[in-house]
Amino acid sequence: MDGKSLSFGAVGSISGIKNPVLVANKLMCEAQKGKLSAGRIPPCFLVGDGAYKWAMDHGIPPCSPDVMATKFSLSAYRRNKRKLELAEKVETDLVDLKKFRRSSENENDSGSLDTVGAVVIDREGNVAAAVSSGGLAMKHPGRVGQAALYGCGCWAENTGGQNPYSTAVSTSGCGEHLVRTIFARECALALQAEDAHQALLETMQNKFISSPFLVGEDCILGGVIVLRCCRCSGEPDSSPSTGALLVEFLWSHTTESMCVGYMSAQDGKAKTHISRLPPGAVAGQSLAIEGGVCRLGISAN
Amino acid sequence: MDGKSLSFGAVGSISGIKNPVLVANKLMCEAQKGKLSAGRIPPCFLVGDGAYKWAMDHGIPPCSPDVMATKFSLSAYRRNKRKLELAEKVETDLVDLKKFRRSSENENDSGSLDTVGAVVIDREGNVAAAVSSGGLAMKHPGRVGQAALYGCGCWAENTGGQNPYSTAVSTSGCGEHLVRTIFARECALALQAEDAHQALLETMQNKFISSPFLVGEDCILGGVIVLRCCRCSGEPDSSPSTGALLVEFLWSHTTESMCVGYMSAQDGKAKTHISRLPPGAVAGQSLAIEGGVCRLGISAN
Repeated sequence: MDGKSLSFGAVGSISGIKNPVLVANKLMCEAQKGKLSAGRIPPCFLVGDGAYKWAMDHGIPPCSPDVMATKFSLSAYRRNKRKLELAEKVETDLVDLKKFRRSSENENDSGSLDTVGAVVIDREGNVAAAVSSGGLAMKHPGRVGQAALYGCGCWAENTGGQNPYSTAVSTSGCGEHLVRTIFARECALALQAEDAHQALLETMQNKFISSPFLVGEDCILGGVIVLRCCRCSGEPDSSPSTGALLVEFLWSHTTESMCVGYMSAQDGKAKTHISRLPPGAVAGQSLAIEGGVCRLGISAN
Repeated sequence: MDGKSLSFGAVGSISGIKNPVLVANKLMCEAQKGKLSAGRIPPCFLVGDGAYKWAMDHGIPPCSPDVMATKFSLSAYRRNKRKLELAEKVETDLVDLKKFRRSSENENDSGSLDTVGAVVIDREGNVAAAVSSGGLAMKHPGRVGQAALYGCGCWAENTGGQNPYSTAVSTSGCGEHLVRTIFARECALALQAEDAHQALLETMQNKFISSPFLVGEDCILGGVIVLRCCRCSGEPDSSPSTGALLVEFLWSHTTESMCVGYMSAQDGKAKTHISRLPPGAVAGQSLAIEGGVCRLGISAN
């Protein structure tokens, strides 16, 4: 999704492509060129074989699945498969299954290698967001998680109309929970309030952990990175298009931990940080929230 | 989507199934049974071959594509294909293309046989919504339209919390436009206002025809059927669970026409109505809106 044009592109359930986010971006760019022949409207979301063929027709290089399967991912797959077979064979009761699942979460066979999200802003204040995910371990073929779903995996919306702030959001966690709460868009809407930290805290609490759409779920796992910005006001030479940008970057999660990195165009490499729940907090029920503010000056150039 | 449980299921890019909405419903029902073995979260949205295999594993009968291809749909397909080849060969300029497209719209090769949506309410006030669509003629393989996308094709939400009304919505039209405006959910949100007719009118105008997400589109084609209800108040024996239901059914569209049918459990068959734009109104820029109110008494049984 691109905040300036408000365009959106997505693919899902696709294999044989090294970076599916490139296909999503290409879909978005192609759609901005206007109608196809005979007045057909360009698609914004493709899945499966159709998505793969579209990518091939649009110059995205194919990638053999063999190359994509690392030793590590193959062994994680085999471990997960054994675990699943065991769980199905043993027919253990619900309590045991839950214990089993929690211990697997600690082993983190796939959790720590999953969704990658990005939120960016340029010096003109344009925002963009993207997210890519391999999905859940042992998921059903064809399943599409939040990453490919509009309003759920990411959101980007430049300031304008009734929105005083530009916002960019990317989510990670349990796809179905993020889908059912349309969580990326929900965060973006809330971030139009004055206090970003308070708005994000309340959204995590009321629209995610305690969401009416997730009633009955005992463990709501998710995380979000958000960026919002506005022009600094009250400066001697400020004008809507020339004032410095006040940029807030925040993250929040209900998972045990979430890895966050950030950098500016001036930095050689990203600063990274592993955010963790406060001591004693319960994953899926409590949350961590952090962030910072920076002022982006406008260079003479 | 089921308004009581707020559950949701969807499939897309699927063939070889006579009624894909049954697969979506089955996905929703299966998900309500709770976690799969080894604590895996059940999917709410499947596409392509994976969706087909899931359907086969869950007792949905397969249907040969030959049976599904009627003489009429085959000839429409061939006609569309010729039209497309012609358009691509002629390389006519944009103006001609637009004329060409408008004339094809009038021929209505696929438009009138497209999306079917349904909104229902039972006598306890529970609402549900569903939508099924064959998609656009000559669409790209793998394309998923609004029908399978959460918040875009349909919405159903029982009264509760801050919602005075139960709402059910189903949309039809240009999939990408309905996706980018998350239009079903937008309508449902607006319908919590007191005046349903006014709320739907403003939503069609401000969140669809003039949506900031559709800037640059000159022809915004869509239609919506909505149902909302609340308990009658001020009656001698009314209580939150026993009062009669006040049900409003409205429809609105920017397309030239939209076919609407409605019936109650007492009726033997549905009343049908072809709604048309007012004389002189321009499809894709103007709208029609109609509807009615009825009171559902609670039977002694």
